[in-house]
Amino acid sequence: MTVSSAKLYLIPNLIGDTPIDSVLPASLSTLVSQISYFIVEDLRNSRRFLKKLNKDIVIDSLKFYELNQHTNLEEIYDYLDVCSKGMDIGLISEAGLPCIADPGNVIVRMAHEKGIKVVPIAGPSSIFMALMSSGLNGQNFAFNGYINIEPKLRIRQLKLLENKSLREGQSQIFMDTPYRNNKLFNDLLLNLNPDTYLCIASNISCENEFILTKKIAEWKKINIDLDKKPCIFII
Amino acid sequence: MTVSSAKLYLIPNLIGDTPIDSVLPASLSTLVSQISYFIVEDLRNSRRFLKKLNKDIVIDSLKFYELNQHTNLEEIYDYLDVCSKGMDIGLISEAGLPCIADPGNVIVRMAHEKGIKVVPIAGPSSIFMALMSSGLNGQNFAFNGYINIEPKLRIRQLKLLENKSLREGQSQIFMDTPYRNNKLFNDLLLNLNPDTYLCIASNISCENEFILTKKIAEWKKINIDLDKKPCIFII
Repeated sequence: MTVSSAKLYLIPNLIGDTPIDSVLPASLSTLVSQISYFIVEDLRNSRRFLKKLNKDIVIDSLKFYELNQHTNLEEIYDYLDVCSKGMDIGLISEAGLPCIADPGNVIVRMAHEKGIKVVPIAGPSSIFMALMSSGLNGQNFAFNGYINIEPKLRIRQLKLLENKSLREGQSQIFMDTPYRNNKLFNDLLLNLNPDTYLCIASNISCENEFILTKKIAEWKKINIDLDKKPCIFII
Repeated sequence: MTVSSAKLYLIPNLIGDTPIDSVLPASLSTLVSQISYFIVEDLRNSRRFLKKLNKDIVIDSLKFYELNQHTNLEEIYDYLDVCSKGMDIGLISEAGLPCIADPGNVIVRMAHEKGIKVVPIAGPSSIFMALMSSGLNGQNFAFNGYINIEPKLRIRQLKLLENKSLREGQSQIFMDTPYRNNKLFNDLLLNLNPDTYLCIASNISCENEFILTKKIAEWKKINIDLDKKPCIFII
């Protein structure tokens, strides 16, 4: 059996506590039941997710490898060895799509180098679901990850992103650690142009989902508490 | 009944001829059976899609409004009027997620202005499925839409995108009209640095899906025909 017969499946996870059938393809349950090896961002989260996806899966019979910001890159070199024995392997992020806003891409790059087929599965992503719901330009956009926390650099970055959005017509997507969301909201109100459109999307795909796009001038009249809620910001 | 009780649902479509249950959430079939009004990018495509999603839907009982690049923006102003009567409405793009790489965002912007709740549904997107499968940076990326077709501007744009990718570490996603894909592939081989990584993803989520990331120097040794295949390019 050649290396290329095995596949690396990119398996979408839930975002928060959502019913499986409202965000994930029905066939995913069958697919994961045929995989015995998983590379996961968070061990406990992935075990719980797989069990929720398919209650017949025997978690203890599976082999898990961890890949997150604490993983030594030398360690992961052997993770794909099972593929050379013809076994498929799944990559699961802590939330949403693997490799989007997480460091999973290193293992995918390695799969390409080793000639292992990479297969993406559709699923929820707070970034893309926020963008499509924002009413802002979805034909040209950038995701900038976490905003700078150093006060001066932070303000400079926000103004730079606003400038790019206005000048190039490129929607700018960013986020912050959830406990700093209210601070980010205030920084945006204080530093952006009153006419700039801002979309705030929190708890995407969950029961208390909140998505709203307003001009900065209008946001100033609205009281919201974003503390500790997962949020995507778009200007 | 207030305006805000009605919702604008952003309904994902298939990308190509894929089984429903491998890319769309199971609950979508029930959701669309409860909606009687749809704003669609392509009338024929949407009718066929809804019938495939739920064979019990009586297509002739539904009301469709068209929204695409040929639509006069004045026309769409009344599209959301049904929401003021408490009726939900669905937005369906020709392929994949509405408002991503299509002009649907104008109606979403209008929904925010009218106080209508916008609800995104998870589904397939060739852009994001290509990005997650590329092994390239998914923590900072930009989608640039269609590449310029004027020869000089085209080469300049490709070099600019390569420069951004190398200098800022921001993955650059772009596409071309499918019949020009082979030309774009050649332009990339001729003008980019041999060490630059290029991901080509075609026929995403379909039977003949092809996703590969290689350095430009390696791509030069590979024979591929991308003519008329839907493709996403990432550097």
